[in-house]
Amino acid sequence: MHRVYGEAKTTLGREMTGMVELILLRHGESLWNRENRFTGWTDVGLSAQGIKEAHRAAALLKEGGHTFRVAYTSVLKRAIRTLWIVMDDLDLMYVPVHRSWRLNEKSYGALQGLNKQETAERYGAEQVHLWRRAYDVRPPPLAWDDPRHPRFDPRYADLDPASLPATESLHDTLKRVLPCWENHIKRDLAAGKPVLISAHGNSLRALVKHLDNIPDDEIADVNIPTGYPLIYELDDGDLTAVGHYYLGDPQEVAAAARGVARQAGPR
Amino acid sequence: MHRVYGEAKTTLGREMTGMVELILLRHGESLWNRENRFTGWTDVGLSAQGIKEAHRAAALLKEGGHTFRVAYTSVLKRAIRTLWIVMDDLDLMYVPVHRSWRLNEKSYGALQGLNKQETAERYGAEQVHLWRRAYDVRPPPLAWDDPRHPRFDPRYADLDPASLPATESLHDTLKRVLPCWENHIKRDLAAGKPVLISAHGNSLRALVKHLDNIPDDEIADVNIPTGYPLIYELDDGDLTAVGHYYLGDPQEVAAAARGVARQAGPR
Repeated sequence: MHRVYGEAKTTLGREMTGMVELILLRHGESLWNRENRFTGWTDVGLSAQGIKEAHRAAALLKEGGHTFRVAYTSVLKRAIRTLWIVMDDLDLMYVPVHRSWRLNEKSYGALQGLNKQETAERYGAEQVHLWRRAYDVRPPPLAWDDPRHPRFDPRYADLDPASLPATESLHDTLKRVLPCWENHIKRDLAAGKPVLISAHGNSLRALVKHLDNIPDDEIADVNIPTGYPLIYELDDGDLTAVGHYYLGDPQEVAAAARGVARQAGPR
Repeated sequence: MHRVYGEAKTTLGREMTGMVELILLRHGESLWNRENRFTGWTDVGLSAQGIKEAHRAAALLKEGGHTFRVAYTSVLKRAIRTLWIVMDDLDLMYVPVHRSWRLNEKSYGALQGLNKQETAERYGAEQVHLWRRAYDVRPPPLAWDDPRHPRFDPRYADLDPASLPATESLHDTLKRVLPCWENHIKRDLAAGKPVLISAHGNSLRALVKHLDNIPDDEIADVNIPTGYPLIYELDDGDLTAVGHYYLGDPQEVAAAARGVARQAGPR
């Protein structure tokens, strides 16, 4: 069901009609990825390595002849800058961009800012793995008066403060990603426009779970590497996922995905 | 009526209630500004100087405590990059951005790509001044099959090719800017959100003419310098312009505006 990297590419050429492309791109390494800290809704910038990864993603898209007519991203700068670099390198700065808090990273609640390895040493690797990867487990929430609570951030000023998450499971993340997918992204795809989504490890995992109907107990082992475009080919009638593949060297992509899984140390 | 630079600032403090701010920003110097060529709808990038000017604009906004909650720009990269630099420097990358062809530079038709000084030598300085600045004079049009015609550009693929301009007077430009102003920008301002528009010499002159009711025969002498934010204070009830002023040293701003007027040589 969850296909092996590259498999779809050999069976489904992009020359086939009746397909529309969705490009998923996880932002390149951020300064807190580098420090191995839980980031969530914290607005941390890309590292120099992350900027390189964004340029690599653009080069892979160019090389493969992929393009997009609409782009979606979160309201967090690491995803936005990744998108800007891709748009710039592909000479697509004119493409409409929709920013949505619904594409933000999963909220890690009170873990935001903590080192993943140290957190694992304190709470145990298994607990941290559950907080990071299990479908229905929420990290400890931010207190209502914690200055990190999103209600204090002007970017969410138009939203009801009570609706802003103090923590999230992946299930919670999927629930708030879906309205953006159903009401906006699908409409562009249904109009035949290829779409690029520049977002985060968990908001993209949530979407992948939905697109591929991955069971709740299998999503924990899906890891999306940073900076390698993940191409979905969708049926242009019902927009179901017909196949998907990463751009880039399959060994490198697989190694990068294993790197994501290992961030909190061995279980 | 058309106020002296800085006058409004002394009479109307931003601490007054009942006002909402509109920030107009003409993109910094482009590669063709530098070569003194007519650009119009040609998608030319910023020069190194233009990039500096965008950072200066951001610094002036920051220094003056100005901000924005929505941004508008054209579909041309010199305006978009100017906006990106400002958003980045002000840590406002999350602000929603609306791109519209309606905010594009005036189409210079068949003049696009020609040197302004050489064109003045060939057609006379007075004719070139009319093409550049007169309200109802159109430069020679692009032929329907000219590869520079916007109907060949994928960024306009969603528009009716017959509606795309082959040339424009400032009056034409104003007519296509107005629906964006009336239907979109005014709605954000009416909701109390300060707006930044990153656009072009003539699309901004058109808007200024409308905001300040400048007569047709006076708009020729209004020149907007690149990279100095022009702040309009609007009544938050009816959105009429109560006052306006440039940020930056008044002498420098005035000198920059005179520089724009002189580009095709003395008349």
